[in-house]
Amino acid sequence: MTYTAEIIAVGTELLLGGTANTDAQDVSKLLSELGINVYFHTVVGDNPERMKSAVEIAKNRADIIITTGGLGPTFDDVTKQTLAEAFGKKLIFNEEVAEKIRGFFKKRLPHMRMTDNNLRQAELPEGCVIFDNGVGTAPGCAFQVDEKHILMLPGPPRECRAMLKSCVEPYLRKLSESEIHSHNIHIFGMGESAVEEKLRPLMESLKNPTLAPYAKDGEVMLRLTAKAQSKQKAEELMAPILANVRETLGDIIYGIDTESLENTVITQLREQRLTLATAESCTGGLLSKRLTDIPGASKVYLGGIIAYSEQSKTELLGVDKELIQKHSVVSREVALAMAEGVRLKLGADIGIGVTGIAGPDSDKSGQEPGTVFIALSAKNTTLCNQPKLFYDRERIRIGAASNALDMIRRFLSEK
Amino acid sequence: MTYTAEIIAVGTELLLGGTANTDAQDVSKLLSELGINVYFHTVVGDNPERMKSAVEIAKNRADIIITTGGLGPTFDDVTKQTLAEAFGKKLIFNEEVAEKIRGFFKKRLPHMRMTDNNLRQAELPEGCVIFDNGVGTAPGCAFQVDEKHILMLPGPPRECRAMLKSCVEPYLRKLSESEIHSHNIHIFGMGESAVEEKLRPLMESLKNPTLAPYAKDGEVMLRLTAKAQSKQKAEELMAPILANVRETLGDIIYGIDTESLENTVITQLREQRLTLATAESCTGGLLSKRLTDIPGASKVYLGGIIAYSEQSKTELLGVDKELIQKHSVVSREVALAMAEGVRLKLGADIGIGVTGIAGPDSDKSGQEPGTVFIALSAKNTTLCNQPKLFYDRERIRIGAASNALDMIRRFLSEK
Repeated sequence: MTYTAEIIAVGTELLLGGTANTDAQDVSKLLSELGINVYFHTVVGDNPERMKSAVEIAKNRADIIITTGGLGPTFDDVTKQTLAEAFGKKLIFNEEVAEKIRGFFKKRLPHMRMTDNNLRQAELPEGCVIFDNGVGTAPGCAFQVDEKHILMLPGPPRECRAMLKSCVEPYLRKLSESEIHSHNIHIFGMGESAVEEKLRPLMESLKNPTLAPYAKDGEVMLRLTAKAQSKQKAEELMAPILANVRETLGDIIYGIDTESLENTVITQLREQRLTLATAESCTGGLLSKRLTDIPGASKVYLGGIIAYSEQSKTELLGVDKELIQKHSVVSREVALAMAEGVRLKLGADIGIGVTGIAGPDSDKSGQEPGTVFIALSAKNTTLCNQPKLFYDRERIRIGAASNALDMIRRFLSEK
Repeated sequence: MTYTAEIIAVGTELLLGGTANTDAQDVSKLLSELGINVYFHTVVGDNPERMKSAVEIAKNRADIIITTGGLGPTFDDVTKQTLAEAFGKKLIFNEEVAEKIRGFFKKRLPHMRMTDNNLRQAELPEGCVIFDNGVGTAPGCAFQVDEKHILMLPGPPRECRAMLKSCVEPYLRKLSESEIHSHNIHIFGMGESAVEEKLRPLMESLKNPTLAPYAKDGEVMLRLTAKAQSKQKAEELMAPILANVRETLGDIIYGIDTESLENTVITQLREQRLTLATAESCTGGLLSKRLTDIPGASKVYLGGIIAYSEQSKTELLGVDKELIQKHSVVSREVALAMAEGVRLKLGADIGIGVTGIAGPDSDKSGQEPGTVFIALSAKNTTLCNQPKLFYDRERIRIGAASNALDMIRRFLSEK
């Protein structure tokens, strides 16, 4: 059978516009991968009566109801009570869960006194499956009444996402007869519509697997998804399409099923036993932050210098004062001097220099926000790019850091 | 009268998880500012039947229905037809709107051929108010049936946002008698449940204004919201509560209506004309990234050193090798030496040093992830903290950077 699900997000802050409903997005993504139809999302406030009415409506149009939010310890967290009541279940205090919550406080928050209301989180619908919360205190749960499945997940996006992966996916996979498998193809250096135009005939010709593009932070991701009775059959369906996409797009694909450009770069460096150092001006630490987001980065990333002032460029990186005066601080020449300076200073195999204007204002010389130079220095190589960057300060900084990462990736791929 | 609104977002891509429903967030923000209650959001796909059922439900529980999406030129854009039908209105071709669409294509998209389906966007419900689309082709519209108001807005977030400001706000202001105003109180250094426990009696005693806590990235925000006939009356209602909260929470409040800890720190530094430099190990650039997120940071933030390897700590920061051997690289002594080193190296008024273990693995000496030392060095001051940090690599790094920012804030507040 093909299931139909409805997502009910609970939280007055969503109705006030304080935050976007990213939980519904995360749940929807998983359900669509599992081949479960989602026809409605509902958002309702922390109000038992209106929540009840939303549940009554969902009962009539969905086989699976998934709620997010309202599981916390405070008096306005009423999801469990409302759902249990709507489906004729009692809430029962679970000593095991209570012990876990006490343990969580003891171990992780030893300086905080656990208040009694935290134990309200141990009250759960009778006969439910408990979803462990690996990253917070409120457990989730699922119960079944006749043919309906009711799942309750915590609202904080991080907790919701972790529980989706560790508990909800296995729970729902059991309901489904066919399996859904997918590959994510990560692309840097081409816009979404250009990628789509190149692949349109292929995308339109496909039924199973399907191929769909998603754009985020200046990158494009293509998701290839197949439905089949086993993982092997799904892989067989996807293999020729994957080969086709690889051939069509070439080296703008930076990874399949990888997490990020920075992940790819750290992996390459570790494989090639090379070390990296960075000198940043306009990105102000964003590049090094992204590199050190990756566990184990310390094996290959030696460190960096944030040369935000002109003085720090000359004193910490040894950039020639006259060079700056001659070419301006935002120039190819200064980017190259920064890359070489930090490479020598830290004794790294590869040095990166980034200088530019993130905005919102232009610099003294009148160069516009988005003017950015990125240089790479290695033993027998120097490279410099000036990528096209625009929009706002945030996107210019992200774009500059991504272009620097892509420059390292391409350099290491060609070695 | 107090109006109740419901937002219906139309678009299958929302149900597939391709994008978050930011339109509903933007609409909600505006409605909450105008004192219009929002009790439900609904998301429905590009499917006439299910859209009709969603509209029927909304009709029964809201005075104002606002749709987003489904106004485009393609065959699956059916919002206008469905809403017009549900309220017994005909769609009429509007020659003036058609002329505008033709003009838009000629002027803005001269390289694109306008297809006939673009003119479907000129069909509008009889007797409606037309909302001009300043940044796209699909106009929005509003019509009234008895006491109900129906508003339709385009789905692309940029177009929706522009129309909210230029057309929807004036339309709705005419309906509303009272205004809503709010203040955001930003807190660092106390968990959500502890904050709530301190304020519970106050929070429970309030009707107007209301006070509600929100937690994010290790911080807590309290939103104080008042409904009144004017901004001044709203402020009068909020003033005593604000004073009460300030007195109860003291200096863990780092700002009212500010954007972030880093914003507060940059503002303090600018006001006191002091400069800052940072030396980071485990945060790997996150601290400097957050400081340089703020436009104008370059006026007070000189730069920093990411000393990710032991060698970089000794060579770039002048930390004594023996000190590291004696106390280990993650220690109070090394944090202090890093803070002082970077302050002197960059000639800054304040230097910050952060050293610790972000995980997921312990370090050689067996110290656990979450062990972090943060030091501040100024002319006649040295400070060092060891905050309690836990969970995972990401949160340890965010927590360490936030604690460093809070240390600077407190130091500058006490000056």
